[in-house]
Amino acid sequence: MAITVVGSVAFDSIETPAGRRERCLGGAATYFSLAASYFTNVRVIAVVGDDFGKRQEAVFAARQIDTAGIEHTKGKSFFWEGSYLDNLNEAKTHTTELNVFGNFEPKIPEAYRDSEFLFLANIDPVLQRRVRDEMPDVKLVAGDTMNYWIKDHRAALLEVLKGLDILLINDTEARMLGGHNNLAQAARAVLEMGPQSLVVKHGEYGATLFHREPAGQQIGEFASQQVSKLANRPCGESARPQIGRSKKTFRAPALPMEEVVDPTGAGDSFAGGFFGYLAAQPEITPAAFRRAMFYGSVMGSFACERFGTERLQQLTRQQIDERFILFRELTHLD
Amino acid sequence: MAITVVGSVAFDSIETPAGRRERCLGGAATYFSLAASYFTNVRVIAVVGDDFGKRQEAVFAARQIDTAGIEHTKGKSFFWEGSYLDNLNEAKTHTTELNVFGNFEPKIPEAYRDSEFLFLANIDPVLQRRVRDEMPDVKLVAGDTMNYWIKDHRAALLEVLKGLDILLINDTEARMLGGHNNLAQAARAVLEMGPQSLVVKHGEYGATLFHREPAGQQIGEFASQQVSKLANRPCGESARPQIGRSKKTFRAPALPMEEVVDPTGAGDSFAGGFFGYLAAQPEITPAAFRRAMFYGSVMGSFACERFGTERLQQLTRQQIDERFILFRELTHLD
Repeated sequence: MAITVVGSVAFDSIETPAGRRERCLGGAATYFSLAASYFTNVRVIAVVGDDFGKRQEAVFAARQIDTAGIEHTKGKSFFWEGSYLDNLNEAKTHTTELNVFGNFEPKIPEAYRDSEFLFLANIDPVLQRRVRDEMPDVKLVAGDTMNYWIKDHRAALLEVLKGLDILLINDTEARMLGGHNNLAQAARAVLEMGPQSLVVKHGEYGATLFHREPAGQQIGEFASQQVSKLANRPCGESARPQIGRSKKTFRAPALPMEEVVDPTGAGDSFAGGFFGYLAAQPEITPAAFRRAMFYGSVMGSFACERFGTERLQQLTRQQIDERFILFRELTHLD
Repeated sequence: MAITVVGSVAFDSIETPAGRRERCLGGAATYFSLAASYFTNVRVIAVVGDDFGKRQEAVFAARQIDTAGIEHTKGKSFFWEGSYLDNLNEAKTHTTELNVFGNFEPKIPEAYRDSEFLFLANIDPVLQRRVRDEMPDVKLVAGDTMNYWIKDHRAALLEVLKGLDILLINDTEARMLGGHNNLAQAARAVLEMGPQSLVVKHGEYGATLFHREPAGQQIGEFASQQVSKLANRPCGESARPQIGRSKKTFRAPALPMEEVVDPTGAGDSFAGGFFGYLAAQPEITPAAFRRAMFYGSVMGSFACERFGTERLQQLTRQQIDERFILFRELTHLD
């Protein structure tokens, strides 16, 4: 089933210990779309400037990504310049030029309106909410955000969270949003803000999927007398029953890689693999959710292997599934 | 089969956000022994002062741990005082009094000499090596160390590493010892120093087991054309064939806990669960290694639930196995 994604399409200049690249195609919606395109149809809503030409368009076209919702306006596209020289886990931003993205007014093409899945990539929560409201019939909505919106645009963000099924953020963002240093406590606080499920991305340590618990149950509650209760926990009443029963915390790995060429977009690629896989399933069962976490990790790991979107442009589904098997072997007992 | 462990038995004064405890029974050998005692027979080599009395002795006795190798001398036992007020992942040391531990000369009781497993907890590498040399017939030797020895006693530590089958250290120590910020590269460098296997403990993110690779193969080498090669990699020639074939990188989870009461000893408890489980197996297969990683994580998670060794004193094997199942559910796709 088709996913509509709204977010940034940008140019990035990136420096890492492996080298430097000028004005790669980037942006959250780009990484998300490419990663998700190996699983399902993807439709993008974004805005670009005159510098976005045939070459960039071809990257989307090669993956059959619908770009009818990419608005072309006068001016330059969103530009970001950053480096990871000291720490591959955290970008140092040198330049952020919003350019045409500063006046982004997402417009949803008519042909996108039958999308059953919606991904709100990291943009102004006011815009995220507007798109969400204009697509009331989607089956499942996931989204991302960042420290800037959490800190300075909290009220608008909280409105978005009410309309989200799944929020995907990193550790720092989860702790900041939830207001707890303890990740399990932070996760619980975030889930009380609206989303049924929360994916916390841990970079090189993988990612954890938390679900909203029935009242009175604790995430990560491990007094041993609780174990069997946890293991047999009945499903909570859910507004969206297609997510399924028996919702348990789940951790997907990331693989220790000898060389991370460029971590830019790894989180967005995780989201693309995760949501793309989910959107391709006939039914969203707990087992599908777990496999989606693995596919998220798989796509995140591919993204890091080359600069920008290079690696994500050239994959095959067979390569993706082979790595899925590798991730399974990395974590499974037998 | 019996494990002999050499290391510290100490008193700890600990402050965490959950409260404060004065002079708990602590020390790496204590946590290790208690955790391992749920799987196999454990024999301790340590030194204590006059302050180690019947009450402390009873903690070991209740778990059938052999304390014949705990030497009692005049003076005070090793004392450590620390807090985790800002960061539960890293202790702030306020006081370290070596006391009688400063003159520790490990003496191996005759009755310990048929131990088939040896664990060298974090002590002066000169002493670790001496004990290793005095027990040449053990089947498997594992050990721990810390930043102090890595930084200032590197030559002595390198001698120890040559005689180790398995080294268990944390991320920071692995990066420091291996001389790489990248964990996979650091792991490879550490494995070239001697150990066949390396367990890197990631605290709340679990732990990763790396094995020495046949020459020309890379840990974490993920070019897709390599995947099937990796999956079918033949066993390397091994000096200790009982470790088995098909040695792959493996990641065990840690569970997101709502309340970490006291992380002191979690790493030593991981080692005790890991090595204790291995020692109890009729054959040390790759599958046993993977299960051992899970049991390590399980024992580490229990250790954090109460101050000091409180939780480790009161477990049942059933509780341990229930949590093992929980960890399996946390990570397994079906």
